[in-house]
Amino acid sequence: MATVRIIDVTPRDGLQDAPGYVPVPDKVQLIQGLLGAGVPAIEVTAFVSPRWSPLIADGEEVLGQLRDHQGEWIALVPNLKGVQRAIRAGVDAVTLVVSASESHNRANLNRSRDETLNLLQDAARLARQQGLRIRGAVSTAFDCPFEGRVALSAVLEVVARYLAMGVDEIILADTLGTATPRLIKERVQAIKAVAPEKTVGLHLHDRRGWGLANVAVAYEYGVQEFEAALGGLGGCPYAPGAAGNLDLERLVEFFEAQGVSTGIAGDRLVEVRQRVLTVIAQGLPAPETSKKMEG
Amino acid sequence: MATVRIIDVTPRDGLQDAPGYVPVPDKVQLIQGLLGAGVPAIEVTAFVSPRWSPLIADGEEVLGQLRDHQGEWIALVPNLKGVQRAIRAGVDAVTLVVSASESHNRANLNRSRDETLNLLQDAARLARQQGLRIRGAVSTAFDCPFEGRVALSAVLEVVARYLAMGVDEIILADTLGTATPRLIKERVQAIKAVAPEKTVGLHLHDRRGWGLANVAVAYEYGVQEFEAALGGLGGCPYAPGAAGNLDLERLVEFFEAQGVSTGIAGDRLVEVRQRVLTVIAQGLPAPETSKKMEG
Repeated sequence: MATVRIIDVTPRDGLQDAPGYVPVPDKVQLIQGLLGAGVPAIEVTAFVSPRWSPLIADGEEVLGQLRDHQGEWIALVPNLKGVQRAIRAGVDAVTLVVSASESHNRANLNRSRDETLNLLQDAARLARQQGLRIRGAVSTAFDCPFEGRVALSAVLEVVARYLAMGVDEIILADTLGTATPRLIKERVQAIKAVAPEKTVGLHLHDRRGWGLANVAVAYEYGVQEFEAALGGLGGCPYAPGAAGNLDLERLVEFFEAQGVSTGIAGDRLVEVRQRVLTVIAQGLPAPETSKKMEG
Repeated sequence: MATVRIIDVTPRDGLQDAPGYVPVPDKVQLIQGLLGAGVPAIEVTAFVSPRWSPLIADGEEVLGQLRDHQGEWIALVPNLKGVQRAIRAGVDAVTLVVSASESHNRANLNRSRDETLNLLQDAARLARQQGLRIRGAVSTAFDCPFEGRVALSAVLEVVARYLAMGVDEIILADTLGTATPRLIKERVQAIKAVAPEKTVGLHLHDRRGWGLANVAVAYEYGVQEFEAALGGLGGCPYAPGAAGNLDLERLVEFFEAQGVSTGIAGDRLVEVRQRVLTVIAQGLPAPETSKKMEG
């Protein structure tokens, strides 16, 4: 039977820039709800500086309440310190992140692309030693808010560096939500050509209603993994004009209607989505961050 | 350069079941507006009984005012009488129509599928003799509102009959708007296998937001022609639950953004769309039909 792996990024990308803070118990309930609906892997948090993402600076606390689990817990990490925190918090996988375009990388991570890649080598080494699954995410893999169309060669340079670090997956992120099926086909085929054995995933932002068209064509060309968020929440705070993530429920329905199994019970997501949107709508401020969570 | 042919069906499918009648001068202005924006072919009307489609029973009058033209005028015809009217009215192409499913064919055309196909043989012969382009449309090519999933074999039977009649194109119609990329791939590949030299087109109804995903995958598998309507107007009156057509402007934008040329200036469609929607919104009743237009 045809299958596809859908990863929920609601607690990380969906909440990091939301109009209200979701307290730790609600985050835990959200994640348990997603897991209960059959979501196989969840990006729980990002281990970055709390100054960057105060709304999700509670990753250690959240993961501390999620020790026993069947699913895969993922954390986004920008550097070695992030991996160290991820290991202590007990995650199963880390998402390393670098932009294919220089300008977005500087805006997002405050250093050059090469400096970032050099730092990620140490991060990847430690993650591998600890048996963590390593996901290499390429931001601005299609267009950059500052530079426009990103050259395929720039994406392939980052992919080559990731492969040298021994990543398990390559994730192409459509940071701006401007990818088209034709671009996705071009880039997926190029990556499959240099790394036929690696899982290739997509992180799409659904800006113009082209999200599912991109998904459908990516699936045809061998993409096996898609990231999504409840209610289409999300958007990169460092990419002006970026739209929300793919809507998790719509994505599940889209695949299941085609006989492609996601393992997710779409009807069980409704209540989970309603609950988290209700909490966000309260517009709570981010809690004061403590020294120990400094990234 | 990659190209795709987009056919506008606003005057026929968009207006046949609209909440208001569009008078002949407005229909002519609509069609000239579409042509002026570069739309290469327009389904102008249907030559059916005015009892069936009173809002578009004015096809002769409309076409009478459109004698000089650069584009391709298409009329939907259900039988020989329809082709005779189409020839007198000066169209360039006819769309023959039959459903792959028996129940929808009876609801739509009031006779069995085989009876319809037998009648269409004479219609196709006359159209060919007169040098008209012949489009063979297969309604309920995916799902039927009464029978559910339609067997691929039922679609291929209709296609074989159409090929025997010498049609120039096969059009698969997603009457209910329930097609998925996977179904489209299956059916397009099967038709391309038996008729590799024929143009294959799609007539989609965008029910669940999967329209562009279906378009994208169809394009990958060799579909060169797509039908659409301004404002996503349309829907089959004999298919309960059917949604509107693909939105013409969104379809043009989708292809042009990928470097696939449609030949259509999307920005020139805005005013055309606004004008026709304004007329529809007036809610004018259908004019009384005259004896001479009896189908």
